[in-house]
Amino acid sequence: MRADRSGQILLAHGSGGRLTQQLVDSVFARGLSNPILVRMEDAATLDFQGRLACTIDSHVVSPLFFPGGDIGRLAVTGTVNDLAVAGAEPMHLTAGFIIEEGFAFHDLERIVESMSEAGAEAGTDIIAGDTKVVEKGAADGVFVTTCGIGRVPDGVDISAAGARPGDAVIVSGTIGDHGITVLSQREGIGVATGLVSDCAPLWPLVRDMLAAAPGIRVMRDPTRGGLAATLNEIAQASGVAIEIDEAAIPYRTEVRSACELLGLDPLILANEGKLVAVMAQEDTEAVLAAMRSNPHGRDAALIGRVEAAAAPRVHARTLIGSRRVISMPTGEQLPRIC
Amino acid sequence: MRADRSGQILLAHGSGGRLTQQLVDSVFARGLSNPILVRMEDAATLDFQGRLACTIDSHVVSPLFFPGGDIGRLAVTGTVNDLAVAGAEPMHLTAGFIIEEGFAFHDLERIVESMSEAGAEAGTDIIAGDTKVVEKGAADGVFVTTCGIGRVPDGVDISAAGARPGDAVIVSGTIGDHGITVLSQREGIGVATGLVSDCAPLWPLVRDMLAAAPGIRVMRDPTRGGLAATLNEIAQASGVAIEIDEAAIPYRTEVRSACELLGLDPLILANEGKLVAVMAQEDTEAVLAAMRSNPHGRDAALIGRVEAAAAPRVHARTLIGSRRVISMPTGEQLPRIC
Repeated sequence: MRADRSGQILLAHGSGGRLTQQLVDSVFARGLSNPILVRMEDAATLDFQGRLACTIDSHVVSPLFFPGGDIGRLAVTGTVNDLAVAGAEPMHLTAGFIIEEGFAFHDLERIVESMSEAGAEAGTDIIAGDTKVVEKGAADGVFVTTCGIGRVPDGVDISAAGARPGDAVIVSGTIGDHGITVLSQREGIGVATGLVSDCAPLWPLVRDMLAAAPGIRVMRDPTRGGLAATLNEIAQASGVAIEIDEAAIPYRTEVRSACELLGLDPLILANEGKLVAVMAQEDTEAVLAAMRSNPHGRDAALIGRVEAAAAPRVHARTLIGSRRVISMPTGEQLPRIC
Repeated sequence: MRADRSGQILLAHGSGGRLTQQLVDSVFARGLSNPILVRMEDAATLDFQGRLACTIDSHVVSPLFFPGGDIGRLAVTGTVNDLAVAGAEPMHLTAGFIIEEGFAFHDLERIVESMSEAGAEAGTDIIAGDTKVVEKGAADGVFVTTCGIGRVPDGVDISAAGARPGDAVIVSGTIGDHGITVLSQREGIGVATGLVSDCAPLWPLVRDMLAAAPGIRVMRDPTRGGLAATLNEIAQASGVAIEIDEAAIPYRTEVRSACELLGLDPLILANEGKLVAVMAQEDTEAVLAAMRSNPHGRDAALIGRVEAAAAPRVHARTLIGSRRVISMPTGEQLPRIC
């Protein structure tokens, strides 16, 4: 039931009145239906006992639709993955939409459908939402903010501060797929034909990893700022050095070629379906075996180790055998990647 | 420590790299400091047992600063109030910021300070956050999405579907203050000089009300769409009619005058520090007494009653003694009110 025959979102869809009700009923409640959401209370409620994990992410990706995903899939996976790398099983999500006047109803429906699909992959659902509409020109299409709550299983204690000298550093698969996919959609840069974003919810992979080794010390998803930012965050939080072997990092051919062509450092490219994990050396084999049995960890690889250090730092053994410092990225390589 | 001497947010502040770290450290961690936030993990964790309430709201108010508040205060109170009207004590908030390139650091700091102050009033804090920066023109200043989690005390069961024939309908104070305040700031309309937004966290008021009568059946905060939308939502969810007495609704003189001058219906004006409550007649006196002892319920008033009805509807006895239907608002009276 659409009040607007032009198929576009109107300012009145954000008024809190009849059109807001129609938008919520026709797009959100229908697309995301679950027993908690349909109650349509100002707050969703549920019984909970244990260690609760909570995270929030705003999503402003441009373009909104890209090979392998869209802002809806990204909004669910981004939040699910922040829970997953805290070792938390995602339970429920909430979503806030900021929509530009004139946005196509049909596109909003596609985004909500993607959110529903990605939620199902992750075993989660959207139990509360909010919609605001701003005038044409006051936002760019749609922004989606998702908040997630999850449950940390007993005995799991994952923290960026947990890395210890001697630990192994693992990455769950090829690096840079999302960054190059979005970049190649922008401004008509026709690189990386056939590449798709890796955008995927990682909880099933993390569950398998924790089953293999509940004592995994650190997990992080290298999104904005890429592997370089994530490894530096871990080194800083843990007060250690991390040495990685550049030759061990898995890349798709399309990503490697695009980086060479455009002069990009693949270590700062964003990923949306990958994680970095740090664990005791003796856990490495079991965790890698578990990861490689999961579709999202098929290309998992041991890429480095943690070392004691007077000052936190990350460095790489390069393909030609030298060492280079991997710094925390500065400047903006590609805005609105997620 | 600011990397940008111009005092403006740069795209690189959203890159996930060094400038993002500096922004988070210098503005968010400093302005919102608490033991969970400072851990700076991808997800915040805490122990919880009981009935959990969860809500999300995106805030796009324009102007960002207005008499009585700003988008930061609004973002905290909006979410705290959605928890409170579910009967839930607010525990923690998470916040996602979407910032337009070029936004003033100083304004962001003011907004974060307001969030911290409003959080303290409500007895809550911000335990996780996210920041995205979009190009100049792709957003309007800053949008803030807040998600809240709270705990519903045992025995409390509040729902829009709870109203029963014979129940009393109460409002916690003067209606329309926020709507007219924001309107008078827009486009140089110089009405309502001296009026300030009612923007305030209502948990302390709700706590007092529940202490007086734990069996309160419905609470809702009449934000967008005002009293008209809220009463219609309650009537629809409960399958009842609601009759209100227009003469009993409290208004400030400035709001009444502005509505007369501009031809606005005060029942569809937004409020950000008011609630509507429905309860058994026998609870009315105790609840009103408790409300009037709280600064945010000083002007609380009994405004109507619930009646049995074949079809849900809301009507008002007017000042001249006739009856008029109060419909769910259609169209958009004032965009970006919250």
